[in-house]
Formats: sequence, C-alpha cells, structure tokens
Amino acid sequence: MRKRFKKDMAASVQKYTESISYDRRLYKYDIAGSIAHAKMLAKQGIITAKDAQLICKGLASIQTEIENGKFVFKEEHEDIHMNIEARLIEKIGDVGRKLHTARSRNDQVALDVRMYVKDAIADAIEKMKALQSALLDVAEANKVAVMPGYTHVQRAQPVLLAHHLLAYFEMLERDVDRLSDCLVRTNVMPLGSGALAGTPYPLDREFVAKELGFARISQNSMDAVADRDFVIEYEAAASIAMMHLSRLAEELVLWSTPEFGFIEIDDAYATSSSMMPQKKNPDVAELARGKTGRVYGHLMAMLTLMKGLPLTYNRDMQEDKEGLFDTVDTLTGTLDVFVGMVATLKFKVGKASKAAGEGYILATDIADYLVAKGMPFREAHGVVAGLVQYAIEKGKTLDKLSISDYKKFSPKFGKDVYKISAQTSVAARNTVGGTAPSQVKKQLARARKLVNG
Amino acid sequence: MRKRFKKDMAASVQKYTESISYDRRLYKYDIAGSIAHAKMLAKQGIITAKDAQLICKGLASIQTEIENGKFVFKEEHEDIHMNIEARLIEKIGDVGRKLHTARSRNDQVALDVRMYVKDAIADAIEKMKALQSALLDVAEANKVAVMPGYTHVQRAQPVLLAHHLLAYFEMLERDVDRLSDCLVRTNVMPLGSGALAGTPYPLDREFVAKELGFARISQNSMDAVADRDFVIEYEAAASIAMMHLSRLAEELVLWSTPEFGFIEIDDAYATSSSMMPQKKNPDVAELARGKTGRVYGHLMAMLTLMKGLPLTYNRDMQEDKEGLFDTVDTLTGTLDVFVGMVATLKFKVGKASKAAGEGYILATDIADYLVAKGMPFREAHGVVAGLVQYAIEKGKTLDKLSISDYKKFSPKFGKDVYKISAQTSVAARNTVGGTAPSQVKKQLARARKLVNG
Amino acid sequence: MRKRFKKDMAASVQKYTESISYDRRLYKYDIAGSIAHAKMLAKQGIITAKDAQLICKGLASIQTEIENGKFVFKEEHEDIHMNIEARLIEKIGDVGRKLHTARSRNDQVALDVRMYVKDAIADAIEKMKALQSALLDVAEANKVAVMPGYTHVQRAQPVLLAHHLLAYFEMLERDVDRLSDCLVRTNVMPLGSGALAGTPYPLDREFVAKELGFARISQNSMDAVADRDFVIEYEAAASIAMMHLSRLAEELVLWSTPEFGFIEIDDAYATSSSMMPQKKNPDVAELARGKTGRVYGHLMAMLTLMKGLPLTYNRDMQEDKEGLFDTVDTLTGTLDVFVGMVATLKFKVGKASKAAGEGYILATDIADYLVAKGMPFREAHGVVAGLVQYAIEKGKTLDKLSISDYKKFSPKFGKDVYKISAQTSVAARNTVGGTAPSQVKKQLARARKLVNG
Amino acid sequence: MRKRFKKDMAASVQKYTESISYDRRLYKYDIAGSIAHAKMLAKQGIITAKDAQLICKGLASIQTEIENGKFVFKEEHEDIHMNIEARLIEKIGDVGRKLHTARSRNDQVALDVRMYVKDAIADAIEKMKALQSALLDVAEANKVAVMPGYTHVQRAQPVLLAHHLLAYFEMLERDVDRLSDCLVRTNVMPLGSGALAGTPYPLDREFVAKELGFARISQNSMDAVADRDFVIEYEAAASIAMMHLSRLAEELVLWSTPEFGFIEIDDAYATSSSMMPQKKNPDVAELARGKTGRVYGHLMAMLTLMKGLPLTYNRDMQEDKEGLFDTVDTLTGTLDVFVGMVATLKFKVGKASKAAGEGYILATDIADYLVAKGMPFREAHGVVAGLVQYAIEKGKTLDKLSISDYKKFSPKFGKDVYKISAQTSVAARNTVGGTAPSQVKKQLARARKLVNG
Repeated sequence: MRKRFKKDMAASVQKYTESISYDRRLYKYDIAGSIAHAKMLAKQGIITAKDAQLICKGLASIQTEIENGKFVFKEEHEDIHMNIEARLIEKIGDVGRKLHTARSRNDQVALDVRMYVKDAIADAIEKMKALQSALLDVAEANKVAVMPGYTHVQRAQPVLLAHHLLAYFEMLERDVDRLSDCLVRTNVMPLGSGALAGTPYPLDREFVAKELGFARISQNSMDAVADRDFVIEYEAAASIAMMHLSRLAEELVLWSTPEFGFIEIDDAYATSSSMMPQKKNPDVAELARGKTGRVYGHLMAMLTLMKGLPLTYNRDMQEDKEGLFDTVDTLTGTLDVFVGMVATLKFKVGKASKAAGEGYILATDIADYLVAKGMPFREAHGVVAGLVQYAIEKGKTLDKLSISDYKKFSPKFGKDVYKISAQTSVAARNTVGGTAPSQVKKQLARARKLVNG
Repeated sequence: MRKRFKKDMAASVQKYTESISYDRRLYKYDIAGSIAHAKMLAKQGIITAKDAQLICKGLASIQTEIENGKFVFKEEHEDIHMNIEARLIEKIGDVGRKLHTARSRNDQVALDVRMYVKDAIADAIEKMKALQSALLDVAEANKVAVMPGYTHVQRAQPVLLAHHLLAYFEMLERDVDRLSDCLVRTNVMPLGSGALAGTPYPLDREFVAKELGFARISQNSMDAVADRDFVIEYEAAASIAMMHLSRLAEELVLWSTPEFGFIEIDDAYATSSSMMPQKKNPDVAELARGKTGRVYGHLMAMLTLMKGLPLTYNRDMQEDKEGLFDTVDTLTGTLDVFVGMVATLKFKVGKASKAAGEGYILATDIADYLVAKGMPFREAHGVVAGLVQYAIEKGKTLDKLSISDYKKFSPKFGKDVYKISAQTSVAARNTVGGTAPSQVKKQLARARKLVNG
Repeated sequence: MRKRFKKDMAASVQKYTESISYDRRLYKYDIAGSIAHAKMLAKQGIITAKDAQLICKGLASIQTEIENGKFVFKEEHEDIHMNIEARLIEKIGDVGRKLHTARSRNDQVALDVRMYVKDAIADAIEKMKALQSALLDVAEANKVAVMPGYTHVQRAQPVLLAHHLLAYFEMLERDVDRLSDCLVRTNVMPLGSGALAGTPYPLDREFVAKELGFARISQNSMDAVADRDFVIEYEAAASIAMMHLSRLAEELVLWSTPEFGFIEIDDAYATSSSMMPQKKNPDVAELARGKTGRVYGHLMAMLTLMKGLPLTYNRDMQEDKEGLFDTVDTLTGTLDVFVGMVATLKFKVGKASKAAGEGYILATDIADYLVAKGMPFREAHGVVAGLVQYAIEKGKTLDKLSISDYKKFSPKFGKDVYKISAQTSVAARNTVGGTAPSQVKKQLARARKLVNG
Repeated sequence: MRKRFKKDMAASVQKYTESISYDRRLYKYDIAGSIAHAKMLAKQGIITAKDAQLICKGLASIQTEIENGKFVFKEEHEDIHMNIEARLIEKIGDVGRKLHTARSRNDQVALDVRMYVKDAIADAIEKMKALQSALLDVAEANKVAVMPGYTHVQRAQPVLLAHHLLAYFEMLERDVDRLSDCLVRTNVMPLGSGALAGTPYPLDREFVAKELGFARISQNSMDAVADRDFVIEYEAAASIAMMHLSRLAEELVLWSTPEFGFIEIDDAYATSSSMMPQKKNPDVAELARGKTGRVYGHLMAMLTLMKGLPLTYNRDMQEDKEGLFDTVDTLTGTLDVFVGMVATLKFKVGKASKAAGEGYILATDIADYLVAKGMPFREAHGVVAGLVQYAIEKGKTLDKLSISDYKKFSPKFGKDVYKISAQTSVAARNTVGGTAPSQVKKQLARARKLVNG
C-alpha cells in the first residue's frame, strides 16, 4: 500500500501506528466477515465461485493457524486485516488479491468491531444474569433475616437482608436492559460502505448481513465508517454497571469490618498481608471498586477522541480498541468473580439482626405510631426528635424509657409503644416495593422469573 | 427538623448544604407530586378529603406565587421541598403538616428529578427532530451538489453534499433512539419508597403513577431512593449527542475558512473581533465544540460521585442536580442555535464541486476501472498508486496525463479512462447507503418520513 | 464591532455566546488591567496623559457603580470587557474609544483570568493552612490517644490519632506546594500580545506587569493568547486537594457511624432527616465527597475543550471560566467548612483506644517479637498466621491464649509475649515518620513551624 | 502468606488480583530497593553482614535472570515483589526469608513506583527537549517565512512561521517545568513506613534514601503508604503535554490538506489507504491527537479510584500501575515520533506566504494606520469594518480598492496605505513577544539557550 511513497515508514512510525499487537483479538470476526464478503462477491458475479471457494478455504485454514498458535503476526503488516490478507495471498496466490474488492479497511474494521461488541454484550448479559441468580440464592437462603438499613451510612430503619440484596437485582436488571438497547444500535452491518462513499460494485449487502447474523444494514456510508457510537454506548453502560458493582463492593468492605461484622467473605475470596499475619482483606471487592475508575477512564478517552472529528474516518479512531477490550475484560472479569464471592458469602445474621433493633433506629416507627393516633406527621416527627434527644442525654435507648418518660412528650403514648420492634417495623412496610416479608416474597418470585425468562 | 440538636447549623454549613439556589427549578414537579400524593392519601383514608383539598389548593396558590415572582425562597429552608412545605404550613396552618405523611425527602426528590428528566428528554427529542428537519431542508435544496468526501481530512472520494448531511441525520436518529430508551428507565414512579424501606401506610402507588403520567412504579424501595442511573444515562446520551454536534461544528469551522471555502455562515450566526475589523468568526460552532467538554465533565462528575456509595441515600447525591440542569440547558441550547445556523447556511456549490473533481481524488475510480477490466483489486491499487506518484512528479493531475502515460502503467487503460469524473464516481456508488443520487434520493425520503413519523 | 455585517446577531446566538452572566465576576481585574494599560499608553506617548487620567477616573467610577450594585450589565454587550468599555464611552465620551488601542480582547481576557487565578491560589493556600492548623490543634489536644490504624478498612496496627491526623497535614502540605508551583506559571503578564501577533505600538510591557504585580511577561504572543495551561493546572491541583478532602470525609463518615463510633460531629455541622427523627447525618462530609466529582468534571471539561485546538484563540476557550469559577468556589467553600468541622470534632478516645488493643491487631508485634528472638521474618509471619487461625477457631483473642497454646506454635514464645499492647506497639515504631509518641511529637513541632512559616 | 486461611484462593480470584502480568516492569526498582534495604539492615545490625551479602548477590543474579529472559514469572506469586522474594528463597535458602524484615509490601510498592516515576520524568524531559530542539531547527531554517496567523481558524494577521513554532517551544517549556516540580514531590523515600505505622526496628532511612538517590525521606508513615499524588500529578502533567501535542497535531493535519497546503509531511511519517491509492495521510498526527484521550482517561481513572478511600492502603490502589505505564509509554512514544516528524517537515513557504498577504488579513494594520493618524481605535475599527464590507461586495480585496474608495470611508487615508504588506505588518509588531523578525531572533536565541542549558 505504500507504492505511492518513495520511502519506507520510519521504524518509530511503524511502532507508533501498528495495531496488530492488540487487534489480533478480532481475528475470528475478520475472517468471518471476509468469508461472507467473498461469498457475496461470488453470488453477485464480481468474482468467480471458484475464486470465492479458494478464498474461503484459505481463510479457514488461517483461522486454524491462529487458533493453533502457528500464525506469525507481523508488525510490518500493521493490523489484523493486513496480516490475514497478506497470509492469504501467500497461501493461495493472486486470487487472494481479489478479496479486498469492493471493500475498504474503513468498513472492514467497523464490521469487525461491531461483531466483537455484539458478542461482548451477549457475554456481559449472561454474566449479569448469573450474578442476579447468585444474589437471589443468597436472598432466599436468608429470607427472614433483618438488618439495619442505612442512609448517610447511619442506621435508618430495619430492612430485610433479602430486600437489600434485591436492590442490586434491580440495578443489574437495568444494566441488562441498557446493554440490550445498545445491542439494537450495534446490530447494524456496515460492509459495503467502502472507504466512505459506498462502492461501485453491485453488492448484496443484505446477504452479508444475514450470513453474519446482523439485524439491519447501515443506511449511510459516511456515517457507517465514521461512527463509533456503539463503542461509547457500550462503555457508558459498562461504566454504570461497574458503578453498581462498586457500591456492592463498598458494602462488602464495610460489612466485613469487625466494626460492622455482618458478613464473612469466604477464604477463597480473601487475601492476607505480607507483614500482618492476622489480616483477612476483602481484596476482590476493593479491586472491583478500583477498576471502576479504569472503565470510566476508557469512556472518557473515547468521548474525548471522537470530539470534534470531521467526517469521515480519521486515524484517531484506531484508538477505540484497546480501551474497549479492557472495558470488556474488566466488566466480565468483575462479574465472574462477584458471582463466586456472592455465592459463598456468609451472613452473620445474629449480629445484623441485633443492630437492626438497637439504638434509635425505630424512631420513625414511633412517629408513625403517633400519626396513627391522629397527630400530623411533621408534629410527630418533632415529638420523637425531642424524645431521642432526651434518651441520649439519659444514656438510654428508646426501648428502655419508661412510659412516663414517653408521656412527657405526648399524652398519646400508651404501653403499646413497646410492641414496636425491628420485626413489626419491617412487617408494616407492606406496599409494593416495601421491605415487608410478604412484599419481598413477591419480589423474589418476580425476580426469579425475570432472570430465568 | 433539627429538634434533635442543641445547636443551629453553622452559617457556613447552611451555605454549603443548601440547594434552594438551584433546585427551585423543580418547583412545578414538586408541587404536582405533592398534589398527587395528597389526593392519594385522601383516597386511601390516610387524611381526610377536606384536608387534601386544602393542601391542593394551597399548593396551587404557591405555584402561582412562584410563577409570579412573589415567592420568597429562603436559604434556611434549605431546598425547594422544605421551602414549599414551610410556605404551605404558613398558608393553611397545621393541616399542611400532614402532607409529608408516608413520604420522605428521599423518595420525593427522586420523584421530582425523574419528572424533570422525562420533560428534558421530550424536549431534547423535539429539538433533535427540528435539527434533522433543517438538515433535510438543506440537503434537498442542494440535491445535486457534489463535494470532496474526506478521510484523515484528506480528499478521498467525491460525495453528494446531501449524502454528507444525511450522515448527521443518522447520528441524530440514534440520539433520539438513545433518549427514548433512557425514557423507559426514567419513567418509573418512586414515591411510596419512604426514606428507604417503604412506608407503613396503605398507599395506592399506582394511583399516584397514573396521576403523574408515569408508566410504572418502582419495585424496590432501597433501590428507588439510591438510584440515579437515569441521570447518568441522560448525561451519557447527551454527551454522545454533543459529540455529534461537535463534529458538525468542526466541519462548519473548516468549511468556512477561506482555505476550504465551501460555506458561508449567515451574518446572524457569526461574530467579529474587537481588534481585527475583517474577521467573521464561526463562534457558535466553536462554542458548541467547547461546550462538549462541559457536558462530558458533568457525566464524569456524576459517575465519580456515585462510585462506591453504599446504599441507600447519601448526601453526595444532592450533587446530581446542577450538572444535570446544565447538561439539559447546554444540549437544548446548542440544538436550538444549530437549527437556525444550519437552516441559514449558504453552500458555495461551485467551489465544493470544483474541489470534488480536481487533484487525485478519482484514483479509486481508476483502480475500480482496472478491476472492471479484470485486474485483481490489490494489483489495481498498486498500479494507480504508481500512476499518482508519477503524476505528482510530473506536476500534473490525473486528468492531464496522456493515454500513453497511462499505458506505461497498464495496457488495460483505454481512452474511456477520461470519462471518469466526480459525477460518474458518485453515480457509480449505487448500493444501499452509497452516495449515488438515486440512493440519496431514497434516503432523503426515508429520513423525511422518520422525522415526521 | 458588527459593522462588517448586515444583520444583527440572532437572539438565540446572543444568548448562546454571551458571557456577561458569569464573567462579570472578573470586573475588578478587568478594570485594574485597563487602568494599568491606559497609564502605560500615556507613559509611552500613545495617548495623552489627560486622556489617560479621564479613562482611569472613569474606570474607577465604574468600579464603584458595580460594587454598589448600580451597574446595569447588558447581554448585548456580550462580556464584562465590552460592558465596561461601553459604559466608559457613555461616561467620558470619545476618549473612551482610545482605551482599546494596542489591545485585543484576546490578551485582555488572558490577563483578567490570570489575575483571577493568582488570587484564587493565594486564597486556597490560606484556607489550606487554616485547615492544617485545625488538624494540628486537634492532634495536639489528643496527643496520647491511640486508635486502630487500618489497611483495607481492616484493623492493621495501632496508631496515634495524632499520627493519623498528621497524614492529612502532609497531603495539604503537598497541595500548598502544588498551588505554589502553579502560581509561578500563572504569574506571567500577557498584555501586549494583541490578538495574536503582538502590536505595532511602542508598549512598555514590563511597566504593566509591575503595575499589576506580575513577576514576568509572556515571551510569545501566539502562545500568550492561546494558552490556558494555568487554568488546567489549577483545576488539577484542586482535584487532588478535593481528593484528599474526600478521603478525610470518608473517614469522618465511617468514624461517626455507631459501628465505629470514634467521633461525634458537632451538632452545628450535622443535619437530620425529614422522616427519621433520630438521624444525625454527616452531610458536610458527604457533600464534600460528592463535590469531588464536580471538580474532577471541570478538569475533564477543560482538558477536553483544549484538545486539538489549532492556534491561536478559538471561541471554545470562552468555556474556561464557569468551570474555573465553580472549582474555586467548591475548593475554598469545602476548605472553609472543614476548618470549622474539624475544629469542633469530638473524639471518643475510649472507644478508639479499646479497638486499638482488641482482637488480632497486635499480630505483627508478635511476629516482630519472634524476629527479635532470631526467627526470620517470613517464618515468624507464618507462625503467627497459624496462631491467629487457631485463636479464631477457639473463639479467643490473642491475649486470651495460654502460654502453652503459644508454645505449640513456637518454643521461642515466653511470658513476655503478654507485655505486648497497643501502647508498646505504638512506642516501638520509633523511626522517622513512625507512630511512636516521640516521633509524632517531633512531627507536630515541624508541622506547626511549616504552617506558621 | 495464606497460612491464616483454610482454602486456596479461587482460580478466578488469583487471575483477578494478580499484578505480575504488568508490574514485572518494576523489577529493577524492586531489586535495587531490596539491595539498599538489605545493606541497611546489616549496617544497623538487624541482620548479619554475611546474610546481607548473600541476599544482595542473590538479588543481582535474579536481575540477570530477568534480563536474560530466564526468569519464570508465576501468577501464583501474584506480583513482582513476591516473585522475586520467592525466587530468592529458592536460590539462597532461609536467609532469603530475612529480607522482608522491617518492610511491608505497602512501603515496598510505594518505593518501586516512585523510582519508576522519577525515571519516567527524566525520560520525558529529555524527549521534550529533543522536540524543542527540532522545533528550533525548523524555525531557524525558515527564519524569514511569513504565514497567516489564525484565530477561530480564520486568517487574522500575518506572523512569522518561526514565531508560530516558538509558541510550541513555550508550551513544552512549561511541560518541562511542570514535570520538574512533580519530581520534587516524587523524590521522597517511603521505605521504613512498614504496613502503615512505621517499624519497630532501628532503621537508618536516610541511608536507604542516599543509596537509591532520593532527595528526602517521608515524614509520616500512614501518608507514605496511602499516597499516590505523584502518580496523579505525573498523569496531569502528561495530559497537559499531550494536549499541547494534540494542538500541534491538529495544525499539521490542517496544514497538510490540499486546502491549506502549507506543509508536506515526509513520506516516512505518512501512510496511504487500503482502497484509495492516491491518499497520503498524516496518521502520526492523528494518532497523537487520538491518544490524548487515552492519557486523559488514565488521569480520570486514577482520580476516581483515589476518591473517598479511607487511610491507609486499600487494594484499589493496585490499579495505579497499568494506567501509569501506559501514560508513560504514550507520552514518550508520541514525543519520539514527533521529533522525527517535525525535523523532516517540508514547509511550502510560497503558499503560506501568499496566504499571509491576500484577502483581508491586513485590516488591523489599516486600522492601526488610522490610529497613527489620530483616530481613536474603536472608531478606526469601525471604519475598516465598513471598508471590508464594501470590498467584499465589490468582489475586491483591500489592496485592489482605489484611493478614492478608501477616502469614502475616511479622509485620513492617503496613498501610503498601499505600503501596508505582510512584511510591514510583521515588522511593526516589535515589542517583546511580538512577531517582528528582530523579536523572533531574540526569542530563538533565548530558546536555544534554555534547551541547551
């Protein structure tokens, strides 16, 4: 391709511009795409059937070479596309030179990356569902366990552990939805767009799409080679998913401190220290939290790189791949290891349950008690705030105050106030989405259906 | 709400934590949400119908006060929710204290922001369609104009101007789709989630959803108050949309240089210089390009802030609003001004058309010419590369080479090579998505239907 | 400035391009810069001394108008520079039209923003030193208190609370250094660069620099108007500083949970809940953590906007200001409120101290005990790991194991193993930077000197 | 190190948590640090001199193994530190177990990364100076060439090409300064901080610092293991440097279009197309522009990951390395290839020079001409704006207007107005930092001195 030039590329330039060190990962998409392209060229009479057969056979044997570790990737062939094409010509001779008819690397690379992202989405969704399943298993195994629910990392109201875990189910459900939506926009076949303007050959683009399992073909050749929305959208969805996992990670880190002590992470998912022999560290959760930044960074890189690029293809866009590959690896790797970590979590139900009843966590229930006796909510809130303040000064928790203490704050208080407990609190929150056992049971059933469906 | 404390908030804290200076923008959503909540409380017998009427009337009159600029926003009431509630109590007395029954600021703010985002999405989609229409108008008005198509900002192949503009139509179409998908996940009614655990009142959450035009209700109270996915997803979609606009902006900047000279931006959309009297600057396009960074920044801020937050609500999340509001303003403001700028663009068809035929831009067509005569593509590519190199050395363009020059490179060349022109080049690219006039005509019709549909 | 055009700016364009709504904040720098410029023009004989006096007097009275709230900012004058110049002409007539001689908005705005950043740096450093002082006060007041030191949010080894607080002193010290370095690069006077090429007038640029308190003048006019490094560098330094504050914030949030219980935030720095009367939330710390994302976002916005801008000035660069202003406000606002919050923190020394001695936190000391008796470290580490495992299974802490238990793991254990305590552990770490009281005392003295120096 | 646990690490966890696949890059720093540590342990009598010699010899031979490709890195040893230590024990037996005395991986990794960043800074500075030299060579070789200076990518005023190139010299000079400042904060020796609290051994930390060429030792052990400021600061400086290079890249892309045509990139630094035989693409510049996003992304990742981390070390921080390594490679790789590309640029002086005189680019000079004849600047600006408008309507450039045309706009115009040219324009801008040849000559001399100094 450098016949127009008088000089070879400078060695530093070859190194700077090559992509074969990472885009080799696309080999199977490149080969599948080339096979479909060759078949179509033959079907349309652009090349002969015999040539197409030779090409397809050659490509298949190259795939075998690659998968057997026999293929020699060469930096001077720059990228996976040229490496495969050069090897094809080496193997089958001049016929191989016909493969690139009616094609440009611009639409070829767009095709390959789209096929890659399609697979990456399917893979991520599968792993998300596995994590949802693991969460449901743990939730069902701990169906009656209560724990403190937190706002501001302060104890707020008792909740069911299963209810808490179902919150992550919901997040993952949105992640699955988001990736499914992204798939629709990724599932568009760009080949036939040429370098930017289409090609002068009588292509059957729908045939290629069908061969490769695409739902639609692109409608504008310039857009088709200039577009990387699907990469960005995948990375944005991955960023949100990693954010969700980072929240779960943070909770696992907190809950496994001696201070909280709600869980024990299985030994197989923990590490120790090079200096401190007693340490049991929740490294997997910490790394997941840290890796969230990495995925955000790739999203930012991609948004930055596409900003202000005039149409159509610009070489900047070669930089789409490494960040994408790492995003895919990080997301799926994190999901994988979370499935195992969640499945083996040991909940210390006793400690969590005790924390759900002690202190001042039932104050809202006491306010609601007053509302039930006819006091406006804002007034009841104020009465109980005073009561809490009083109890703290006395060094007592609310359940230890006498009924006359209570009556100092409102005559509406009666002995039935002592019936309020973590269990009654939880049971009372009995509307859709609330933490009452009956509601949670329904949600568990709905969730199981969704994840299996 | 500070009855539990012995001290007032420090003045610096009040200033640091207040949100009324910006969340007042949510007033109409807050009032609508409160009215629906009050109606439901009455319907369910939690408050009396009379109380509900008083509350609704009071809220309606507060809305009037705000819209007439009569409402006094107070920093000591911290946010829009407390400002309105405090004013309600001021106006209708103790009955006002009942409004917050079975509600927390956590689910209230989630409701308000969701309603705001729903409107923002609808608004952005409308403006995107307006810009699509403007692009189509310009494309149709210049249906036969050719121009150079670029890769690497180097002339690559001739294209129709209309084809080029349709590429932006496609991008905007994906933007519309993405926002529509985001809407599905935003269109979920969170009220009834309470602070985090649900509420102990017999609420009819579906009623509230219906009153407020929501498609669904949330299924997990902890997720409902801890979730800001819809904000992030809106910002991600806005980032991609701004990226698209920044690409168009870049092209407008380039095309309006004297060097390119393909367009003239209307005087109403240009500015001059404080020092250089001759300057006509494409400031709108430049600012749009610059504002892209700002929207990216808000996305990054939001992703960062949510990372690693344990469930459920944490005050960090108050920081979701300013970036969101600014994203909405920036996106819709940019779309607005682009509609006018695009509609008034003057294309200098002659200059663009000349550039589309001169130099070496038809080299691919010459290679395709050789392929049509039986040469494998890779070989044809090499032959033409040599030809171009030869022409450059001779200081000639390809159309000025003699037929004997051509034949030096391949005996397959005949006089019909001179028939290749920008027009034949464009016309030849006649498969779906290609730049041939017949294809572009179909796409224009399809696009018009989509934008109207 | 629109005499070259036949049309007024479209209303939407005026709104889209104006900056007066936010750059009015630069008024005093703009006026000071103009006064220095006018004086210099007179000194060099470019305008008359009388004209300069009129101009300076006019500008001074405009400053008074602005500060008294009498100045009417007009969107049609676009920015602060044109608003002031237009008002000057209104006030003093045609002489006002001479002010802009040998100046462009490009160098004028560069000047104003540099002056603003210089002040912002000085202000941030002052507040950082105030926070350092507050940390030192608290550290000195709790000089003997021990607490658990953490890695992975797991108890690792006992440390002095003062030592822990000094870690934040070190971070702030680097923040101060970084801003000081940034100041050197900001402290460069750009006026005289004109629009981009310099000016044809015999300016005395050093005079202007001296008048305005700049250390140096810029050496390349194109760079001077195209450069915003100082904005980015300030924002990067602010991002790191906010990151530091977010770490402190996270610790305050954790430490004020009932689970940790190491501190109580003063009532004046805490908030309650609209629904849960018992809540005392560390909102200031949470907001600081959240606002970190916002500052990161501004940095990212600015980096994105400058990427790939050809020289020299492009209108994109107008977008430098809002993010900068908000960064300055967020950083200084956060520092302000932290000074008060830290100064009023109540440490629950008893609870922290108890946690520093219990469980398995002294395991490293036991390993070091074995090393002191001649065992290689890696082996000692293994022995103690086994011991910890054994103790956990027995349901005991290390201090409750019998000497025969110890001896099962190594004959080197003697009764002196029971002498190991949080106090001996801390005291032993007696090299520079260690947590031993004697070391911490030296560091407190060093720190006090640095902050006062 | 897992003696405390009953189970092996899950295979997925080993893969998820390992760092040996990338941190092997730190091997020589790890070995140097260990040698210095061992020497110090012996010097202080903590281990014997003989043991230290054995250890040092063992480490040296391991370095040889690594550099000869003989070392077998094992994932089960997790990271470079444990790989080397395990091999040491394998080679020299139990004595090897003493090396980790008084050390933790926490301070060890902090040491290694600091040493790496120190080298990375020195390397980047060297390459920046090489690029400065290349820019100066080109500037000096084209000392008299004029070209259009641009604002808003519109021709603004003529400038010297050398002046334009010197703008990049200034940017790089700030980059060098910024990295030098970063070096001061990186050049701090953390060893002796232990896991977080210091160590109970009588270390000589200053000795280790001296051995390893550090300027200072850290003053707080908790900060020392929890701090990654130096990584972030390097990445921020690299981001700004890449931004500068992206601006130069953008200009090279524009200038090498046929539309601008100011330069030709050397064949050795350009690429062609797989489809379009005529293409000569500025891929190196484009990739540099694209890679800017990547470096920004790493900065964002690192800022995100450190946000809100409680003290001290958390495993999240392991994620500091890959982004750092890639930032270093990207920055230095880009600098390398730019040196060659700039050095071989061919400036088409004639075309640039023609563009610098034609059209309306001298309008400011005409306004200054009127100011010199006594007209206030704002008025002169208006007069010339009208003149430009008139000329455009007549289809003429300014030099083609008759003197009576001129006089219609102001009686101050005389025939000397025709003497204004690109050369007079440039020559007139003769104050410090201006584009006059005499000024540029001085700046070239100053720059050469700086880069050599």
